[in-house]
Amino acid sequence: MRLTAATVCGSDRHTVSGRRSSACPSVLGHEGVGVVLSTRGGHTVQGSPLHEGDRVVFGVTSSCGRCAPCLRGLTAKCTSVQKAGHEPFEGEWPLSGTYASHILLRSGQAVAKAPAVLQDGVAATAGCAVATVMAVLERAGELRGRRVLVNGVGMLGLVAVAAALDRGASEVVAVDPNADRRRLAEGLGAEARPPGSGSEPGNRGTVDVSLELSGARAGIQTCIEALGIGGTAVLAGSVAPVDAVEVDPEWMVRGWRTITGVHNYEPRHLQEAVDFLGAAGRTLPWEHLLDGPIAADQLAAEFRRTDVQRLRTVVTF
Amino acid sequence: MRLTAATVCGSDRHTVSGRRSSACPSVLGHEGVGVVLSTRGGHTVQGSPLHEGDRVVFGVTSSCGRCAPCLRGLTAKCTSVQKAGHEPFEGEWPLSGTYASHILLRSGQAVAKAPAVLQDGVAATAGCAVATVMAVLERAGELRGRRVLVNGVGMLGLVAVAAALDRGASEVVAVDPNADRRRLAEGLGAEARPPGSGSEPGNRGTVDVSLELSGARAGIQTCIEALGIGGTAVLAGSVAPVDAVEVDPEWMVRGWRTITGVHNYEPRHLQEAVDFLGAAGRTLPWEHLLDGPIAADQLAAEFRRTDVQRLRTVVTF
Repeated sequence: MRLTAATVCGSDRHTVSGRRSSACPSVLGHEGVGVVLSTRGGHTVQGSPLHEGDRVVFGVTSSCGRCAPCLRGLTAKCTSVQKAGHEPFEGEWPLSGTYASHILLRSGQAVAKAPAVLQDGVAATAGCAVATVMAVLERAGELRGRRVLVNGVGMLGLVAVAAALDRGASEVVAVDPNADRRRLAEGLGAEARPPGSGSEPGNRGTVDVSLELSGARAGIQTCIEALGIGGTAVLAGSVAPVDAVEVDPEWMVRGWRTITGVHNYEPRHLQEAVDFLGAAGRTLPWEHLLDGPIAADQLAAEFRRTDVQRLRTVVTF
Repeated sequence: MRLTAATVCGSDRHTVSGRRSSACPSVLGHEGVGVVLSTRGGHTVQGSPLHEGDRVVFGVTSSCGRCAPCLRGLTAKCTSVQKAGHEPFEGEWPLSGTYASHILLRSGQAVAKAPAVLQDGVAATAGCAVATVMAVLERAGELRGRRVLVNGVGMLGLVAVAAALDRGASEVVAVDPNADRRRLAEGLGAEARPPGSGSEPGNRGTVDVSLELSGARAGIQTCIEALGIGGTAVLAGSVAPVDAVEVDPEWMVRGWRTITGVHNYEPRHLQEAVDFLGAAGRTLPWEHLLDGPIAADQLAAEFRRTDVQRLRTVVTF
């Protein structure tokens, strides 16, 4: 594929700053959009073969399809999984990342067509942020008429707010320490609150679905304690070590409560992400979410920036 | 209904011994089977009205059908729930219990026909033990080809072992401190082990589904830690206070793991329980599980016994 744009996910900033380890040298970046230059026929999109010239987005994970996790439908946990933007340049998948003019898609990687209506920067978010939210919402179950708590309204959280309201949630409460982000959540129709003891007790035991996207221990505890009868907490933010949380078994049992974890997503969620971006996702205030576009040779400077305000910087090639 | 038999559930022994509080005076007992004497037309069984002379079993909970939990399908958590064998004799449901010649079934209570092939003592267990296991297994999800851990093999645990193998589990590991119960589990096809540090590490991170039926904190922790990728721990034993357990959020997230609680059951699970007892449940060694039958006037002595070996004592009227 020839990449036309990539978006800078926060996890890449952590990698460059050294807070997260990664193969080096490697081509970083895992959110991208572009045009198919050539295909060996290994990819299909919704049952049809991929063609040269198709504009597509693609999944983070490349999976074998034959191991135990793959066979039970958890391809994201394939025992030989490889990930876009995570593989060493000297290995068997040198062109795995999106901060480059070209990327090689592998046969075990999901692909979805990007409708022309989606601008490059918007389409690129499908491959990580938006698809992960689709997986999170699938685990959350029915949202119609449900009271939803979203903890952490970065890119994933704002998508979750918009998608939960689109799926019929009766109320969405968004919790984030950042006032700008709270305002963005309010603009989407959420009730927004800062974290802290003065605000969450109102949610305690009253929420049907809580979505934890911050990874912070206090947020995880809030999302669990917020659950009402039959409630489900979906944890997705904790992709780095964090202290254990305490769970009361009797309270879980008597309340039919559920705590569940999601990491990355399955191929169907990539297609759902594209569909969402072409429909309800168009209500997101993209002009406030996306920065740039910058050229590839500005990326090194971008990673040195300390004044990042917007949620994604778009890189064009 | 005229009751023909009741079975003594362990929770009633806790009530009589004072370890569990309950309305007093009341008619205790919530597992029973009998014959319909008269009906006001409020009950249906699989869409057909109930008739006088029908042999039936019945649900523990009586629910309103109109409150928020009822409307979302959690009738067991009805805001005005009343429970068989739990209601004061001086209240609006004096004949709620099964340690009596007669019981009044209420319109918000599940009823299922008891096939003639089921002897009284076996049929009676449907209403609490077996139906609860059906709810637990529903929450556990797909069992075909799955590795299952059952912690606590009392009445519910043995039913869970038999039902999990019947549903295609590739392996069932049963953990219980009681050697007699472990032998019963082995007889059903489980691999049985005592609890303790020397035995569980083999399960650590390798189990697809764990079913916690003991209520003991160590068992809960074992059931959680046993989960492999995509695994689900269903907690159902913790119906009394127990110290909190620690859960690692990153481990939950990266492994797509789930912890969920179940308490009592829904009407569909009562019918599933009867269906199970008439099919795979016939392989259970009922002759070793049931004691008695005793007459109603022997109940007081039964509750003073300290040498109870079998899992259910049958009372006949």
